[in-house]
Amino acid sequence: MNTNDSQARMEAIVSLCKRRGFIFASSEIYGGFSGVYDYGHYGTLLLNNVKNAWQKSIAQERMDVVLLDSAIFMHPMAWKASGHVDGFNDPQIDCKKCKSRFRADHLLEGFGINADKQPLEFINQELDKLRADKKLACPNCSSADVTEAKVFSLMVKSNLGSPTDALSEENVVYLRPETCGGIYLEYKNTIDSLHPKLPFGIAQIGKAFRNEIVAKQFVFRTREFEQMEMQYFHHPSQTGDIFEGWHKDRWNFYLDYGIPENKLNWFKHEKLAHYASDAYDIEYNYAMLGGFKEMEGIHARGDFDLTQHSKFSGTDLSYFDEATKERFVPHIVETSVGVARMTLAFIDNAYTEEIVNDETRVVLKFDKRLSPVKVAVLPLSKKEELSGPAKEIWKTLSKKFFVEYDDTQSIGKRYRRQDEIGTPYCVTVDFDTLTDNAVTVRDRDTMEQVRVPIADLVKYFSENLAI
Amino acid sequence: MNTNDSQARMEAIVSLCKRRGFIFASSEIYGGFSGVYDYGHYGTLLLNNVKNAWQKSIAQERMDVVLLDSAIFMHPMAWKASGHVDGFNDPQIDCKKCKSRFRADHLLEGFGINADKQPLEFINQELDKLRADKKLACPNCSSADVTEAKVFSLMVKSNLGSPTDALSEENVVYLRPETCGGIYLEYKNTIDSLHPKLPFGIAQIGKAFRNEIVAKQFVFRTREFEQMEMQYFHHPSQTGDIFEGWHKDRWNFYLDYGIPENKLNWFKHEKLAHYASDAYDIEYNYAMLGGFKEMEGIHARGDFDLTQHSKFSGTDLSYFDEATKERFVPHIVETSVGVARMTLAFIDNAYTEEIVNDETRVVLKFDKRLSPVKVAVLPLSKKEELSGPAKEIWKTLSKKFFVEYDDTQSIGKRYRRQDEIGTPYCVTVDFDTLTDNAVTVRDRDTMEQVRVPIADLVKYFSENLAI
Repeated sequence: MNTNDSQARMEAIVSLCKRRGFIFASSEIYGGFSGVYDYGHYGTLLLNNVKNAWQKSIAQERMDVVLLDSAIFMHPMAWKASGHVDGFNDPQIDCKKCKSRFRADHLLEGFGINADKQPLEFINQELDKLRADKKLACPNCSSADVTEAKVFSLMVKSNLGSPTDALSEENVVYLRPETCGGIYLEYKNTIDSLHPKLPFGIAQIGKAFRNEIVAKQFVFRTREFEQMEMQYFHHPSQTGDIFEGWHKDRWNFYLDYGIPENKLNWFKHEKLAHYASDAYDIEYNYAMLGGFKEMEGIHARGDFDLTQHSKFSGTDLSYFDEATKERFVPHIVETSVGVARMTLAFIDNAYTEEIVNDETRVVLKFDKRLSPVKVAVLPLSKKEELSGPAKEIWKTLSKKFFVEYDDTQSIGKRYRRQDEIGTPYCVTVDFDTLTDNAVTVRDRDTMEQVRVPIADLVKYFSENLAI
Repeated sequence: MNTNDSQARMEAIVSLCKRRGFIFASSEIYGGFSGVYDYGHYGTLLLNNVKNAWQKSIAQERMDVVLLDSAIFMHPMAWKASGHVDGFNDPQIDCKKCKSRFRADHLLEGFGINADKQPLEFINQELDKLRADKKLACPNCSSADVTEAKVFSLMVKSNLGSPTDALSEENVVYLRPETCGGIYLEYKNTIDSLHPKLPFGIAQIGKAFRNEIVAKQFVFRTREFEQMEMQYFHHPSQTGDIFEGWHKDRWNFYLDYGIPENKLNWFKHEKLAHYASDAYDIEYNYAMLGGFKEMEGIHARGDFDLTQHSKFSGTDLSYFDEATKERFVPHIVETSVGVARMTLAFIDNAYTEEIVNDETRVVLKFDKRLSPVKVAVLPLSKKEELSGPAKEIWKTLSKKFFVEYDDTQSIGKRYRRQDEIGTPYCVTVDFDTLTDNAVTVRDRDTMEQVRVPIADLVKYFSENLAI
């Protein structure tokens, strides 16, 4: 395989993810459920480690950020206040022949027309021009018989808490399209219970839902997804410094977890939301997706959010500074990243094919802190004299972290299996172990082996894994 | 307060949870959103620790259980197969006067009539008898003008992935009412990717949703909630032993995390689902709810789930045993517990009021592994000569676990604040620290203080916190 070819790389990674139990398309036995993915054993462990890494850097190791775990559902008026109910739409067109759906702005992009965030009138005028020139064609079946663009709401609706079990627009509630809404609604409770002084942040991890017209590019754009968001509340005079500070911190996070700087890029938004004063994305160069794509957003949101929720709820959300005796509505700098997008970047960056002894070795070179399994214990024989001590080692290490035990097939095949899931260390228990009370520890990346006394293993791994 | 009085205890705990940033009712600034709760900083940390404890005991420290993180949404046919679309209902009555909603079976229970899982005909006959005797009355406003009982579906519906943004019964999909559905749908992918040998389990933590007619008792029964479920697949001849084994393991889990055995009880289900061969619940004696209530279910489900999904999906879900050359549909023993129910049990068990020096000390005596914050660093003065070393200590310990830094108010008040959130250890940095390079460590439960060298703190806490 030529891993420089993005499509081949995509196929290799999607296949590895399924074959080795990282990521499955949803509901495969029922023919699939589009835009939704499930995470298998290794995928779940990897997600957990990614979320823990984020939480550690954004809250545990800082004095000025606290956590929140707000629910997916909240009062529907909150999404009126935020502008989502009326304004969170994409322009949709349908092919009357093959029934495919498309985003009209994406279709126009293919003709070199930038229709991003343009009103429907503009989009339909451009589509009419293409139609008149006989250029308009369904990207799937090439039929010219496509509809006008119409507004399609990305908000996912539900009947949770409804007095009837029928679906009705009257009693509709929404699944949150982003997690930060919960942070704004619990800003006051956070202030009242924890009494933080400005500036401070509230961070949370949770599911969000968007009725994307087209979900695509594996787990990069899905309808159900998980976000990690942090809202940093501050006095408006501090926005500049705080914005710069978070830029630096979030950029360094990726470097710290092994993404090389040349695979990262700052994208500055030219078209800002009316309330925003500045907005940048950290882009990652997804080799499997053919280039740089948005991974994390760092945006200065002004006082828009608290002002809107204050207005719509009738609750005062201003802050009183005891020192300066000033009352004001705090401004916000937010950082926002999808768990799957970040995880996919780590997978894309880790995926390596190497030629070792004329064979291709596939290895996921994750930062060790992110690896799903930390150590694999591999007895050289299934005999009780080796499986006994091997299981004891597994048991001791398993109190600390996820450890695998594998006694099937040849040792070479077992090493390859662990390489493919990114396990940093393999412990081989052999017949020498019975006399020297030591084991061979193999390093995933260098493939070098060292002899380590069994009694030192916990210390050895705790240090080398930074756990 | 008399903590033997369950209502007073409930009020004290709900108040503490809000006041100290554990649990907030949803959307309070908008007047509330019934049946949904948000978790503040300490609540989030507590939930994380509870989930980690469960995951560690059920998967990390076992060789025979793997993890899964399946999505909330899946193919709607799966809920036809499971019987939920047609049969997951409660009988609902409405008061025509005050518009309150009630569960008819709960109302009948108040008259000593057991209507649990009885058909609607039975329930309406019993209601008619009460009506004829002029006994029927709305539990809220006492009006006799209440409706007949009707079937109310607990399934929460949505339009995710729908081709239109209108709500319609035609394109309806469901938010899962339990997480185990995802385990059955990914059983085949798990087998194909991890090649586990029977018996083995798949465990997962995730959100589930039920349109409870009445959500009540704080976070005990909510419409949005989180479950921890494990499905253990096995040959039918093993069900008895496996069922016993999981009984023992799950019971011991609670003892290990500090629940005294006299607060636990086995409840045997007499009325079994038609497919189930045996079903027990572990009940906890929630003092705040006035007695024993279901916390965790351990049920033998036979081959119902895989057989149904096999039938409805047309996918063979049988297992072939290489050793015995036998092909069969695996049977399942499941363990299932709500994160909030388990957390509420730990809070209820931890909540303690003690008289210390003629003052009431409120302390959450969590098992240390569950405590939201592990250590609080408290400099005796805000002066730089103490805050300097105190912040260094905070920084070093924060690499390992969540540590708080508090330099406000008297040391006595700071101890009480940490007691109320269950922090096991307080570190006091005083002027002696500047000469002896040691700090005073106070134990939450005994309130005893020991002097520990700063250089030994990481080791001291790692050992005492079992981290």
